[in-house]
Amino acid sequence: MRRFVVIGQKASASAEFSLDDLPGSSGRLDVLLRCVRAALLVSHGVRKDTVVYLVLLGGAAAPRALRVDGSIAEYLRPDERSLARTVQKVLATAGEGPSFAVRSDGFALAEGGLDAVLADLGTFTPYVLDEAGPDVRGVQVEEGDPVFFVGDHAGLDETARAALARLHARHVSVGPVSLHADDAIAVVSNELDRRRAGRPGYA
Amino acid sequence: MRRFVVIGQKASASAEFSLDDLPGSSGRLDVLLRCVRAALLVSHGVRKDTVVYLVLLGGAAAPRALRVDGSIAEYLRPDERSLARTVQKVLATAGEGPSFAVRSDGFALAEGGLDAVLADLGTFTPYVLDEAGPDVRGVQVEEGDPVFFVGDHAGLDETARAALARLHARHVSVGPVSLHADDAIAVVSNELDRRRAGRPGYA
Repeated sequence: MRRFVVIGQKASASAEFSLDDLPGSSGRLDVLLRCVRAALLVSHGVRKDTVVYLVLLGGAAAPRALRVDGSIAEYLRPDERSLARTVQKVLATAGEGPSFAVRSDGFALAEGGLDAVLADLGTFTPYVLDEAGPDVRGVQVEEGDPVFFVGDHAGLDETARAALARLHARHVSVGPVSLHADDAIAVVSNELDRRRAGRPGYA
Repeated sequence: MRRFVVIGQKASASAEFSLDDLPGSSGRLDVLLRCVRAALLVSHGVRKDTVVYLVLLGGAAAPRALRVDGSIAEYLRPDERSLARTVQKVLATAGEGPSFAVRSDGFALAEGGLDAVLADLGTFTPYVLDEAGPDVRGVQVEEGDPVFFVGDHAGLDETARAALARLHARHVSVGPVSLHADDAIAVVSNELDRRRAGRPGYA
């Protein structure tokens, strides 16, 4: 299983945003939605072995977290507006506390932030996507339960950095250019695809 | 310079589509817009050395083509709706024939399809992103003027395949899993970034 945790420092934890102006009204939830697509969708299908968490730290309803589970998501669409509409519907419901409660089509909601996600992850090996880390191509990523933590357009906040440091998360980069979070996820996913397939070309 | 040509078999060549339903009303222009973002935008900036062409083969106004030039695009935004709004405005204007005419912020329009793009490309070395091709990590990509041709969600049509065969375009793949076009572009861009930076980890 592969898991990605995307932390949105100001991403709306409530349904109070406009589908007509996601960047301006949702605390850049659009950045996180693009990460959902990059992590979960491939040509004509969903990555069944992948789970994405979105940590929503923006607005009065924060912190809340969403989980999107590729193994049960069937109708996930790639365009931002469709994803935003689904997320908006889920956020309009009440959570059931810090444990994730399934809402629809692979989406689950928790009333809690990074702590709720960490509790849900169970056993895992943490990695942080960080342009200052060593190149992922040279890093031995655990086959079993790697979890990749990613910041939004503003990076990772101090609280998240401290929590990840306590977990002894390993920092890895994806190359010499600082990429959008969704592109970084695409590159990491490709690297893991290659390793699983036993392809040459990585350290 | 890096250039990408994305061919949209049914992507709207006119402004007659709804921003509220891009996938359903634009012939999947959303797929092409995501390619524009992946090719041109990085963290807090535009790739100045990159140009993207969109070949629009859908609707009565087809064929038309758009060119987005990173060296002069200043206000490019990453979200699909903003990109779609910009494209819609450009498509609402009349082109000036098969040569590209600059419209706004790096966008230019031509009244022609793949032929108009090929004429504009000048000297180049053609590559086709194709899951059946050899792995790009093992391919010597020309430093000078590589141009990568990419299909949309439906792949490349026979006409495009024939034209690219006449150019002796080399087919390259990006790994063992068939990816969305924008993710394939992200992976290729990352590979080229690494080569330019002289990083290890590629053949």
